[in-house]
Amino acid sequence: MLTLKNLPISSFNENLAYIHKDCIAYKVDDLSTLTKIEIHGGVKSVYAFLQVVDDARLVKPTELALNNEAFKQINLPEGANISITLSPPPPSLSSIKRKIAGNILSSGEYSAIINDIYARRYSNMDIASFLVASGSFMSTPEVLALTEAMVGDKTIHWDNESIVVDHHCLGGIPGNKTDLIITSIVAAYGLPIPKTAARSLTSCAGVADTMSVLANVDYDEKKLKQLINENRGAIVCYDGLSIAEANKIISSVERQIGITQQEHITASILAIKLAAGITHLLVDIPVGPKSRIKSTNEAMRLRKLIEYVGDMLSIEIDAVITDGSEPIGNGVGAVLEARDVMKVLRNKDDAPQDLKEKSLFLAGRILEFDPKLRGGQGYLVAKEILNSGRALEVMNRMIHAQGKAPQPQLGHLTRDIVSNVSGTVEAIDNSRINKIGIWAGAGQYAGAGLDLFKKVGDHVEQGETLYRIHSCNSTDFAFANSVVDGYTGYEISSRSSY
Amino acid sequence: MLTLKNLPISSFNENLAYIHKDCIAYKVDDLSTLTKIEIHGGVKSVYAFLQVVDDARLVKPTELALNNEAFKQINLPEGANISITLSPPPPSLSSIKRKIAGNILSSGEYSAIINDIYARRYSNMDIASFLVASGSFMSTPEVLALTEAMVGDKTIHWDNESIVVDHHCLGGIPGNKTDLIITSIVAAYGLPIPKTAARSLTSCAGVADTMSVLANVDYDEKKLKQLINENRGAIVCYDGLSIAEANKIISSVERQIGITQQEHITASILAIKLAAGITHLLVDIPVGPKSRIKSTNEAMRLRKLIEYVGDMLSIEIDAVITDGSEPIGNGVGAVLEARDVMKVLRNKDDAPQDLKEKSLFLAGRILEFDPKLRGGQGYLVAKEILNSGRALEVMNRMIHAQGKAPQPQLGHLTRDIVSNVSGTVEAIDNSRINKIGIWAGAGQYAGAGLDLFKKVGDHVEQGETLYRIHSCNSTDFAFANSVVDGYTGYEISSRSSY
Repeated sequence: MLTLKNLPISSFNENLAYIHKDCIAYKVDDLSTLTKIEIHGGVKSVYAFLQVVDDARLVKPTELALNNEAFKQINLPEGANISITLSPPPPSLSSIKRKIAGNILSSGEYSAIINDIYARRYSNMDIASFLVASGSFMSTPEVLALTEAMVGDKTIHWDNESIVVDHHCLGGIPGNKTDLIITSIVAAYGLPIPKTAARSLTSCAGVADTMSVLANVDYDEKKLKQLINENRGAIVCYDGLSIAEANKIISSVERQIGITQQEHITASILAIKLAAGITHLLVDIPVGPKSRIKSTNEAMRLRKLIEYVGDMLSIEIDAVITDGSEPIGNGVGAVLEARDVMKVLRNKDDAPQDLKEKSLFLAGRILEFDPKLRGGQGYLVAKEILNSGRALEVMNRMIHAQGKAPQPQLGHLTRDIVSNVSGTVEAIDNSRINKIGIWAGAGQYAGAGLDLFKKVGDHVEQGETLYRIHSCNSTDFAFANSVVDGYTGYEISSRSSY
Repeated sequence: MLTLKNLPISSFNENLAYIHKDCIAYKVDDLSTLTKIEIHGGVKSVYAFLQVVDDARLVKPTELALNNEAFKQINLPEGANISITLSPPPPSLSSIKRKIAGNILSSGEYSAIINDIYARRYSNMDIASFLVASGSFMSTPEVLALTEAMVGDKTIHWDNESIVVDHHCLGGIPGNKTDLIITSIVAAYGLPIPKTAARSLTSCAGVADTMSVLANVDYDEKKLKQLINENRGAIVCYDGLSIAEANKIISSVERQIGITQQEHITASILAIKLAAGITHLLVDIPVGPKSRIKSTNEAMRLRKLIEYVGDMLSIEIDAVITDGSEPIGNGVGAVLEARDVMKVLRNKDDAPQDLKEKSLFLAGRILEFDPKLRGGQGYLVAKEILNSGRALEVMNRMIHAQGKAPQPQLGHLTRDIVSNVSGTVEAIDNSRINKIGIWAGAGQYAGAGLDLFKKVGDHVEQGETLYRIHSCNSTDFAFANSVVDGYTGYEISSRSSY
């Protein structure tokens, strides 16, 4: 029997348990590897990895200390009596070895893996192994099995709704924050759209980050239902909802190792939307030479995969392949993207037209989910809702209902990247622009990012600004500066001399 | 500027840095993922992963605390002034993504990966990703490149020796501790054999574990040279030598995720032996249906791979394929294996004959590396050395020189596994025997393991003991007991009735 203690340390999603080297309940001498223990005493036992401490002020030989993650899960007060046992490796780890060897795993195996991840029986190393092993090749039924396993037990039910819609973009396009505009239009039309948005994984801003600039997004299921009842639309962060929990742990590791495979993204997105009770989902698959999805063939393969999994799990999918050849809008980074969104909703003259048009196109497709709407009318209805100011009105009501956020400042450290030739912008490299934004601090600081002054087809004079870098601190700023000169991401054809 | 502190926490090979949530040098608010920092102030900067602390007694806002691993590396006293910067992901991580996508990596890429691992720029998750990504497929030149990168800068030079020999078994066979016998014979003959042995990775006992039962094995290069000068032979643990350091970090992750691919083992073994200054290496590749290497084809492929890498890196390789169809000797686990070894060296009547014969065969092959020896005489010379007691004499001198170990006790919790039929032992499942041993605590406790009373071909009566389980603590014992009944690992043909 040991006494429970909390060491208030946050370890980014991994459960750690600290024992004294002379712990009365465990012989530490022969510990040479990461050792997993099971902690008994709470309603359900909690798994954690041992760290060995040689200081009784941190943890006594009669105590077991847990970091914040594990302490929250065991849900017992400090001083509670607990016991520990060694936890053998979960049998599902052998499926990962089978996957490395090139096998197709069964749905039972995926289910066991996801259950063990959810129960924290996997270390982050184990999860990384699973992601890399399955990331190199997954069959279509495997993606279905993974999706089904990740939906989990808890799902949101929308009792009085026959259609509940949402939109998801498969990303890789800087500045692409159509979601805020689409949600406003669709909610104004009257279809319920409880948007479960993510924070940035590998981009400069996730939809949740951009909405965070305008309103609070951290709410639970109960509040989400209330928000939808009030306004038909809401944009909340999926992290705050207790659905698809295993996926959160997996995403955290994906984020940390920086590896995101299409198959995992497909499973992740569909699992979240299914758990959120979405019945009709529009999936936007942007294609471009410097986007995440590089060819129409690849996009088509992905569309078929999503449609297949959607059909098998009874969610209506409309998957559209769109132009992903350059950034959408001018801002890249949460604050700048929120600015673009509000310009479009306010029908400002300087609103980015590409962002507006793409939002109308996609919102129109969602409206067509409504059987009452005459086929082909979606776009026009969406345009009327935007132009009339009704979309802006809904956005303002959503902001009011979700609670206005303390507006973060645009990064005050700036540098203008200028063109060294006169000519025409021929191409903008999405992945490079995304990287420079990340280096400038975007994804971590809402105010960091890039403001694009020129887009493809624009004429530019020598010395004219292509884009402005915004950083919130000198470390990020120095780093972005040190790398941007190598390659700005812009391709400019210089004026011909005749 | 922050003040350095040590939090005496051991985290199994990962560098962790603890900062207060109100740290004066770093804004913690937006931390949502594992963040890597570079710590400046020591001779060279040290990389570590941030953990955020909400208790000024652990770390003040003006301090940075390091765990034992990182504190040892920065090599500064507590109270020293240090500064931190955010560390961007190392560029070599992009090679891992290329590997997942099925590409062949260049030697420059392997070199960059290994350098970054050595500098602790990789998290354990990143290393796991590398192992899984490369584990699914590596070309022969890639194994060469990985080996070369892992040799590192520091190597041991044996100035007055033209031949320096060693032996390595590619494992998977329980009880196979020929190394201690071979080393004694070869050293008695006069060839220098500085054996760099490993602790158990996935087996019940590594060579270093078994030698630890008899003598201390933790010595540095200087002491190793002195030991070889004295006795021509020594068996030390590679962990204590400052060679092939990146491989130690990789092995630690391999051990934790339980994934060991042949290509990695090949690179690891050859890198260690090259760094140890070995000029002639005998590699034993045991083949059996329940061994790590299951077919002669697979063994042949591995032999060619090892020969290729050896040839390119100028180490003379003699790779032999041996019978791995059942455990070697009777003991499985360090204490029991050491007992078997000493019985062979003492020419006891009850010494396991298979262990003796295999040791003589392999020792003979090593002796044949000596140009002065007439071809085909190796085995006979080895046998003469063993029979005459000269091998035992050398072992006793090695034990004396390395320092006698405090002899660990054989596990006192025992259970006899008996046969439920009369008949003949047809097969023993190596991997099952290994697993039962591990569950009983072997690999972690020297005294745990299995004592095999029956081998393949032996007659057994119903109720007669097949093997005895030894455990050192009740947790392991209970666990081994709960699983062994499912499948004992023995296949017995029952006596026919006519």
